[in-house]
Amino acid sequence: FERRMIEFARDTTSRTRDGVRIDLMANIERGEEASKALELGADGVGLFRSEYLFMNANKLPSEEEQFTAYKRAIEGMEGLPVTIRTLDLGGDKFVESSELPLYRESNPFLGYRAIRFCLDHEALFLSQLRAILRASAFGKARIMYPMISGALELNRANEMLETAKSHLREGGIAFDEGIQAGAMIEIPSAAVAADTLISGSSFFSVGTNDLIQYLLAVDRLNDRVAHLYEPTHPAVVRTLNSIVSAAKAGNIGVSICGEVAGDPVMVPLLVGLGVESLSMSATLIPNVKFVIQNMDLAEAQDIAKMALETTDGSIILERLLDFYTSRMDQLY
Amino acid sequence: FERRMIEFARDTTSRTRDGVRIDLMANIERGEEASKALELGADGVGLFRSEYLFMNANKLPSEEEQFTAYKRAIEGMEGLPVTIRTLDLGGDKFVESSELPLYRESNPFLGYRAIRFCLDHEALFLSQLRAILRASAFGKARIMYPMISGALELNRANEMLETAKSHLREGGIAFDEGIQAGAMIEIPSAAVAADTLISGSSFFSVGTNDLIQYLLAVDRLNDRVAHLYEPTHPAVVRTLNSIVSAAKAGNIGVSICGEVAGDPVMVPLLVGLGVESLSMSATLIPNVKFVIQNMDLAEAQDIAKMALETTDGSIILERLLDFYTSRMDQLY
Ligand SMILES: [Mg+2]
Ligand SMILES: [Mg+2]
Repeated sequence: FERRMIEFARDTTSRTRDGVRIDLMANIERGEEASKALELGADGVGLFRSEYLFMNANKLPSEEEQFTAYKRAIEGMEGLPVTIRTLDLGGDKFVESSELPLYRESNPFLGYRAIRFCLDHEALFLSQLRAILRASAFGKARIMYPMISGALELNRANEMLETAKSHLREGGIAFDEGIQAGAMIEIPSAAVAADTLISGSSFFSVGTNDLIQYLLAVDRLNDRVAHLYEPTHPAVVRTLNSIVSAAKAGNIGVSICGEVAGDPVMVPLLVGLGVESLSMSATLIPNVKFVIQNMDLAEAQDIAKMALETTDGSIILERLLDFYTSRMDQLY
Repeated sequence: FERRMIEFARDTTSRTRDGVRIDLMANIERGEEASKALELGADGVGLFRSEYLFMNANKLPSEEEQFTAYKRAIEGMEGLPVTIRTLDLGGDKFVESSELPLYRESNPFLGYRAIRFCLDHEALFLSQLRAILRASAFGKARIMYPMISGALELNRANEMLETAKSHLREGGIAFDEGIQAGAMIEIPSAAVAADTLISGSSFFSVGTNDLIQYLLAVDRLNDRVAHLYEPTHPAVVRTLNSIVSAAKAGNIGVSICGEVAGDPVMVPLLVGLGVESLSMSATLIPNVKFVIQNMDLAEAQDIAKMALETTDGSIILERLLDFYTSRMDQLY
């Protein structure tokens, strides 16, 4: 069965029954995972977690080492897009290195992490941006900035990217001049003010794990409150809807990377809200593709409408489960 | 000068030049502060931080001790409303008591605090609710629940309140049958889904300090990221606006307790957004009253309109400062 699912995922396209294409992308942590993702039918890499190059090393990776890893992913995807998230350290991801100070924080999830850290460590950030740019010459790379809270940070990150490009131009080093960069939408303020991030973003990538945590003020790693982490909370559904609306109004694409993107129960809702790209563990792609191929866009839109009109998250979840179960019942 | 400000604050009403009344309420931590707040011109207590009764004691206060403290505040306000926030422990407020376990959390601000804790500790919560209810017989008390993330929690809190009332009825103990209870809006999900909290709330009280922290994913006590804590971020302005709109649509009052409520630069924006009640340190009341008496509602509404249309928080702040400065220049 598993083998047949893999063949199916590799050989068919991710389209709804009525022909709407939904890109299914892979989340990876190392360059060499790209080719496996391709085998599992990925339409690209939606999230390359670059911090793992830093966390699993005794010393910080050089620009050259990063370049090699990114190039490997990009070549492994054979021309499909590879979206590299710039360093997302902090929160619960730390590097034990004498080269980087380790800050003790009372609330690291509300602290000095991701883009906040990178904008303060210019040399480190520039070397990562140069490594990505250099790798972009070997296929299709995209850059995304984690933990953007507003336009000011996004603009500063884009300025750094321009600086990195000028370094390469000065050195006569090739890169993709058309490379796209976008903001991750994972902080509530970025969602509420998403329209202010359009001019600096070629796409939005919604990081639902963090977004839900901040919307609900819940650290889901904390057992005492994890029950409050509710992806179908009406505030989450509405917020996803307004992010998609802002992206459509601004004519940019919007993808989701977060656990909900790989959850076949949640996928109809996300598609119905207008999301066109989902990024997940590569091994989840076959299942999600199967769900997409067995539903219509109109059905998904009805589900989204129901979810936007329902004020009780547990009822939303129940109806999503009902849809998924009844669809599976029809198929088997 | 200070003495004249105090006389002015005590003897005049908080009305804009065009006659719109804005209630100026005091934040207090102990019952005996009420009479001083009254002297400084407070229209009531907008926030009685009940957890200080717990934090400053060697042992947890009994229901009787709580009753005495609440009654003292209520009598001290001479019939004006006293809004008691139920226990808001956790976050950065802990009790060192052998009676309550102290949980170690990686992110206490996203953890087991406030209503989350109280709903799990029924005996403790019920005894607080009974103490407030008993005190309500001596004046005008109101109850507010901190850290409500959605309707489920609010409904459970209100059920506990009904249980506490039934205990008193069984014992033949007097309380105000018309006592109001409301949700604090300080978690983004509560703001986004504020309409779902109307049926369980007699009023909303917006806790801007926490709300801004969660919207921006910033622990403002953390020096490395405190610069990102921006009360005029467009996402904050929009969120305040949508909370006020939900309250008006639901025909309930909305007040703000948080540092912005006592900041004369921010007050015109808050009034322009439609907030009718501000709660602050009692010593800030005279200044805020002075600002309110020297502006028109229409001016404030223009400021709110500007803020809602501006996508750069630093420009919003600049214009708020301009208004405040030019108004002060005219007056002196
Ligand atoms: Mg994240
Ligand atoms: Mg609070």
